[in-house]
Amino acid sequence: MVDERIIGIIGGMGVDSTLDLMKKILDATAVETEQDHIHLVVDFNPKIPDRTACIVAGGPSPAPAICRSIKTVTEAGADLILIPCNTAHFFFDELQASTTTQILHMVRCCAEWTFEHYGKGAKIGLLATTGTVKSRLYENELGDLGLEVLLPEPSEQESLMEAIYGPAGIKMGCLDGPAAETVVNLGRKLLNRGACAILPGCTEPGLALNDVDFPVINPVAILARKAVREVKGGP
Amino acid sequence: MVDERIIGIIGGMGVDSTLDLMKKILDATAVETEQDHIHLVVDFNPKIPDRTACIVAGGPSPAPAICRSIKTVTEAGADLILIPCNTAHFFFDELQASTTTQILHMVRCCAEWTFEHYGKGAKIGLLATTGTVKSRLYENELGDLGLEVLLPEPSEQESLMEAIYGPAGIKMGCLDGPAAETVVNLGRKLLNRGACAILPGCTEPGLALNDVDFPVINPVAILARKAVREVKGGP
Repeated sequence: MVDERIIGIIGGMGVDSTLDLMKKILDATAVETEQDHIHLVVDFNPKIPDRTACIVAGGPSPAPAICRSIKTVTEAGADLILIPCNTAHFFFDELQASTTTQILHMVRCCAEWTFEHYGKGAKIGLLATTGTVKSRLYENELGDLGLEVLLPEPSEQESLMEAIYGPAGIKMGCLDGPAAETVVNLGRKLLNRGACAILPGCTEPGLALNDVDFPVINPVAILARKAVREVKGGP
Repeated sequence: MVDERIIGIIGGMGVDSTLDLMKKILDATAVETEQDHIHLVVDFNPKIPDRTACIVAGGPSPAPAICRSIKTVTEAGADLILIPCNTAHFFFDELQASTTTQILHMVRCCAEWTFEHYGKGAKIGLLATTGTVKSRLYENELGDLGLEVLLPEPSEQESLMEAIYGPAGIKMGCLDGPAAETVVNLGRKLLNRGACAILPGCTEPGLALNDVDFPVINPVAILARKAVREVKGGP
């Protein structure tokens, strides 16, 4: 099996979700020898300004730094680009305009997959940063396909943000413990309110939902499988 | 905390060991916010020809492809380079000669750490690919510091190679099961023969020795900690 296409990954937003995407690409690739795996080029820059702080609080835009990462991976040969940060997709048009190389739109890929698997009218429980919620990224993409989004109550959304950004939060590497429990409990609440599945619309809550006993729509896994199909072919 | 140094990683040899190094760099970095993490640039090219096949069986040299990866990460701004593949260090002089950017020599870093912690005359059990064993990489670096290497018997070395390269081997992503058990059992045998610690001199056996109840010298962890100290300062 020979393929020379290179996947570029704009990493570091956040740090664990980048490793999660790389692992999921490996898992999604059928190989006979190690050499069958896909060539990746990863610019892992955790110093990119926080996306939610920009959208919610008027902090500095992350777009210029993300564009520099895009330039780095395209100069290194990437011919397909992935950004494993949902919130960064708020800036998608600006990012795609900076390059002729295709960026797979993670939120759109996920909305299309959800439509195919749950159908029009389905209610999807969204656990995402306040930045992603306010940006209406998932509501717009899912809404365009006739799907409905259920959100946590405002106080629940605050506890979710603490679980992501707090000192014992998932961005600090705390993948076991109270932060992860908060995410799982919020998921159960949305299911009780009528959601047919939980969509972690931010990569950190997704990390807390890898081994739960309810339906989870994982955008990083969907992106990984779609990217591998684009590069390797197959259904 | 501001630092602009970038660590370049020559990845894909093997695929899991690259993720292991990235995770260990994250673990070794003291952070208050995600932005405190170190900027990494990773050329993850699993298509680099197999190192052991070159050393043992006269297969194509991986050095030209590794030099291309080095060029990629230096052009992307790397000012310190790590190669999380022990066997690739057989070609170290040729690789370092291709760039003015410092490559941290994983095998030498590990030998120095081992000397500091176990002292002259200590016997170290080596579990490595036949390529690494034949290259005498660890025997030379440890021997220069007065340490002794214990190796598996030839038939044991064959079973180790199967555990690494076989269809249900660690390079195929089989981190639980018989391949990992083989590695652990070989470690116990070397300890029974007088080794004071086991050194997985190949990143794959190292992955199988992350949670064992005997002393393990992990070159990837030693390399990660040394690289973080170089970039961030500290002891």
